[in-house]
Amino acid sequence: MKTELWWERDDLYYNDNNELVFANQNIEQFARQLGTPLFVHSAARILSNITRVEQALQSTGLESRVFYALKANRFAPLLTFIKAATGCGIDACAPAEVRHALSCGFAPSDISYTGTSVSNADLDFLTGIHGLKLNCDGLSMIRRVGERAPGREIGLRINPAMGTGYGSNELLRYSGEKPTKFGIYASELDEAIELAAQYDLTITRIHFHTGCGYLNDQLESWEEVLKTSLAMIRKIPSLSAVNLGGGLGVPLTRHDSELDLGQWAGVIRRVFGTTGYEIHVEPGTYIAKDAGLLILEANTVETKSGKLFVGVNNGFNLTMEPVHYQLPAEPVMCRLPDSQKKTFAPENMRPTTFVGNINEALDVMYDDLPFPAVEEGSLLALINAGAYTTSMSSNHCMRGEYLECLLLDGIELRK
Amino acid sequence: MKTELWWERDDLYYNDNNELVFANQNIEQFARQLGTPLFVHSAARILSNITRVEQALQSTGLESRVFYALKANRFAPLLTFIKAATGCGIDACAPAEVRHALSCGFAPSDISYTGTSVSNADLDFLTGIHGLKLNCDGLSMIRRVGERAPGREIGLRINPAMGTGYGSNELLRYSGEKPTKFGIYASELDEAIELAAQYDLTITRIHFHTGCGYLNDQLESWEEVLKTSLAMIRKIPSLSAVNLGGGLGVPLTRHDSELDLGQWAGVIRRVFGTTGYEIHVEPGTYIAKDAGLLILEANTVETKSGKLFVGVNNGFNLTMEPVHYQLPAEPVMCRLPDSQKKTFAPENMRPTTFVGNINEALDVMYDDLPFPAVEEGSLLALINAGAYTTSMSSNHCMRGEYLECLLLDGIELRK
Repeated sequence: MKTELWWERDDLYYNDNNELVFANQNIEQFARQLGTPLFVHSAARILSNITRVEQALQSTGLESRVFYALKANRFAPLLTFIKAATGCGIDACAPAEVRHALSCGFAPSDISYTGTSVSNADLDFLTGIHGLKLNCDGLSMIRRVGERAPGREIGLRINPAMGTGYGSNELLRYSGEKPTKFGIYASELDEAIELAAQYDLTITRIHFHTGCGYLNDQLESWEEVLKTSLAMIRKIPSLSAVNLGGGLGVPLTRHDSELDLGQWAGVIRRVFGTTGYEIHVEPGTYIAKDAGLLILEANTVETKSGKLFVGVNNGFNLTMEPVHYQLPAEPVMCRLPDSQKKTFAPENMRPTTFVGNINEALDVMYDDLPFPAVEEGSLLALINAGAYTTSMSSNHCMRGEYLECLLLDGIELRK
Repeated sequence: MKTELWWERDDLYYNDNNELVFANQNIEQFARQLGTPLFVHSAARILSNITRVEQALQSTGLESRVFYALKANRFAPLLTFIKAATGCGIDACAPAEVRHALSCGFAPSDISYTGTSVSNADLDFLTGIHGLKLNCDGLSMIRRVGERAPGREIGLRINPAMGTGYGSNELLRYSGEKPTKFGIYASELDEAIELAAQYDLTITRIHFHTGCGYLNDQLESWEEVLKTSLAMIRKIPSLSAVNLGGGLGVPLTRHDSELDLGQWAGVIRRVFGTTGYEIHVEPGTYIAKDAGLLILEANTVETKSGKLFVGVNNGFNLTMEPVHYQLPAEPVMCRLPDSQKKTFAPENMRPTTFVGNINEALDVMYDDLPFPAVEEGSLLALINAGAYTTSMSSNHCMRGEYLECLLLDGIELRK
């Protein structure tokens, strides 16, 4: 007798023994062998996430390419798998990310570079990588690229001064009413085009990025961003490709619905369908986030001043998003004590606060989540832990140790 | 003709050539040789910060000891300097911090351990370190320490359910109206004392910690915290030491005044003067924060949509506090273009926004700070960068590289 949980899917579910299965792995057994904290990433889920975006883009009738935002998760096995199994490129934002992508098997022409506050040392390196898709974030960068590589083709990052994101979360907006450091605003665009011409730089691409984690409710405002951007770039005749950035979200709570990629592609088709531009997108979260779990041990279960705390063996130094970005990552049990129906019966659920082992008041993963009873020593999995976890992790309080595994079960790359 | 700046002091000032001097080093010259991002820490300032706290504690007439909160900055040369030059111990919150302190020359008896969500693996290690001052954070930890090391002496971390901190910043409160994961509340204290007795554990120390960065305005509420804590612990006859935690702040803006350590010690004397307890304190910020600068290069100076941005070659991955804790770290110029008077004349100042090279909208170090004109390629120093910078740093966007230096000028340890 199964109870359907909101996050369960074909590759992530409780089996008939009430054990959590992910990418065909019994997670409890796997983690007991390898120890925790343990990140597991599913190659099959990564592949299906990329394929879904590619197919949606194909439905627009425009040429297109996906560039995975490496900063979401730069685990080398995962990057090499993406290169070997898909046509996906890389979105990089620092010279070290470009070097890392190259080291994992990508070619310079696979890499789109869009950085900010770029130094001369960065530019010496970047302009030396032949074939790199280099996007300029402002007038200063255009000038300094022009000085180093006159006659080159470049992209321009523009800023349409509009944004959107998960739950309209202000922390995640890259553009909006208040000017940000990102891109070239309409007020400076003519000067940017002139400056590029002075250095004989041909503007072949436009880039913009407008937020993180948008779902269906944000598609309407996303369409406005695309329209405004199109109006800005019509004056650039040499343009062949438009990069719509990333920001595609995944459901983080039971109240979220999956992003409808058909609708999403419909927005692109409506705005850009007749332009003939090649469409580039740069998802990070959408590709990696729901393809990764973080397995933890519950080491301390205790009621303090009437509140039930479950303490685990990691902290917000490994999972920044719940604490610093108000993006929830829900814990689930790796093994249920009873049948699903009994475990999740209302009388067995209590508001439970999950906390980590960092000496900071902030270190709360989930506050008052209705949850079945947890025993000390049991294993938990944080879902949606595949992106912006290890890549942003620190060794704060020297609690930075973990193991990261790519699960390849069911994947065959042999030709 | 000098203009006194709020942060200038004997060891941090502009010389007659308008160059920034810190710990007798010409910072511009030093950083041009070593490259940036560069952290510089002054051993002399560390020493004087520790000495000032020690002397204030001596004025209470009670036995006392300072334990440096290692999580503020664990740079190994800095730790070894503290061990060699002072009687200061270490406050550690993770097994890896204990190992690191031992590796830098501290003895187990120098180390006070107060962790949270402590695993059995942690406890196997911690109870094996003979002489470590081990504080228990809750009932679960008392029980599991008792199982491993019956008959041991322990400390208890209590939670007086009251807190204070810099500007009454809620992000920094470790205790308060809402129950936190930290310590033993009054409601569970009797049970904790009984549990310790069951395992023949002798409670010799009490620990509490109530916030971060408090200054003079918070001393009154701090006194209330101390009084409430004293009322809680009177029932423990075996007690010999009380650890008041850390939280002593330093001025972060021109509007802050220095913490008056005389007043601070007066609070301790008033509350604990007649108890005979040995007093322990665990400053981290107070010892390390104003003893460190971060030197950066301004690589991009550009007005976007009417707002002036200065982009630098590091991001909030190296300096988390301004972005995620709303604790400002002010940038200053390493070399002034003119005499101080001219540089800081009102007509030469413009609201300037300092941003980093991380691809996130959040990556703003200081928004609209009145500042003299900055040229691309010039060097800036972030003051108050000695604590909670490198120790919390990440390689997000692979922008995590830096060099850290201990400046020992003027220090002689030879006996």
